[in-house]
Amino acid sequence: MANELQGRRVAILLAPVGTEQVEFTEPKKAVEDAGAQVDVVGIQTGDAQTMNSDVNPGETFKVEKTFSDVSPDDYDGLIVPGGTVGSDNLRGSEEAVNFIHGFFEQQKPVGAICHGPWTLVEADVVRGRTLTSYPTLQTDIRNAGGEWVDQEVVTDQGLVTSRNPDDLPAFCSKVVEEISEGKHAEQARSA
Amino acid sequence: MANELQGRRVAILLAPVGTEQVEFTEPKKAVEDAGAQVDVVGIQTGDAQTMNSDVNPGETFKVEKTFSDVSPDDYDGLIVPGGTVGSDNLRGSEEAVNFIHGFFEQQKPVGAICHGPWTLVEADVVRGRTLTSYPTLQTDIRNAGGEWVDQEVVTDQGLVTSRNPDDLPAFCSKVVEEISEGKHAEQARSA
Repeated sequence: MANELQGRRVAILLAPVGTEQVEFTEPKKAVEDAGAQVDVVGIQTGDAQTMNSDVNPGETFKVEKTFSDVSPDDYDGLIVPGGTVGSDNLRGSEEAVNFIHGFFEQQKPVGAICHGPWTLVEADVVRGRTLTSYPTLQTDIRNAGGEWVDQEVVTDQGLVTSRNPDDLPAFCSKVVEEISEGKHAEQARSA
Repeated sequence: MANELQGRRVAILLAPVGTEQVEFTEPKKAVEDAGAQVDVVGIQTGDAQTMNSDVNPGETFKVEKTFSDVSPDDYDGLIVPGGTVGSDNLRGSEEAVNFIHGFFEQQKPVGAICHGPWTLVEADVVRGRTLTSYPTLQTDIRNAGGEWVDQEVVTDQGLVTSRNPDDLPAFCSKVVEEISEGKHAEQARSA
């Protein structure tokens, strides 16, 4: 169990400001604990200011690579943390949206939590998929063609989604499992 | 000019946290300067924490009335400020969304700026309308059936929208003008 992601590479996104701290740190730790090598990818390198409960400044963390440094080819899985401002920020980056879209084209596992699924709406990859999110995104997800459900964790052909920080234990466990399983043949069907 | 809103009543929304300060204070001042009586309406009464540029705490302001205290019948116009967290917060309140929907049913002028139009997506009133917003909302607005355009201010049958705080002078001027004109017969067509 401890090494099920040995040799796997995972990208985790970090917005310049407004990523929810625990939705970044906990999934990162979970895949690292399982043996994965993780890159923190963002719009610009340097310190990023995370938030707690969206409005209280959390710790800062380093963005190690920008979207122009990397490709979905380099990774076995992707994690998109939440945070209202951070997720809104990431969906506003065409490079971020293209990077996310590439994981769906390549049928590689993706985990997105809380407000993170806004980036999936922007990448137009929710059509025909079942997923969850922070509840305020449900209209945007349905309008984008997804089926929104209110569950702790939802897995649909390599896409793992959860609602909020309380769901992190279930989310992290499923993300590790899906990245361990590898590519999902059906995942690209609506990418 | 100074008294064109004399005798008119205007509601302006204020989220418990995360409304963008200048998008609250400037439209409020504009309609007050034109003679309107303004109520600050929110999910709960008491101090609300505004933000500057979404992540820096601004001043606090009092929410005077809750959605259960008021009805669109009481007002001649509505203003929905932005702020990423504040707008996300308001769209999560069924009472807020019903209140907003009521202005469209009654063909009364509504002004929404920046991330404020997310509440219009939630109220399902953008279908068939042309509007603008902070650019990250454009996909959500198009998916909800609206036509999104990138302009300083857009007026469509009593609905006034703008993109960000830089647009406030044009936004405030149009909001005063539309509330001064009163009901717009075509506004309810898609409510």
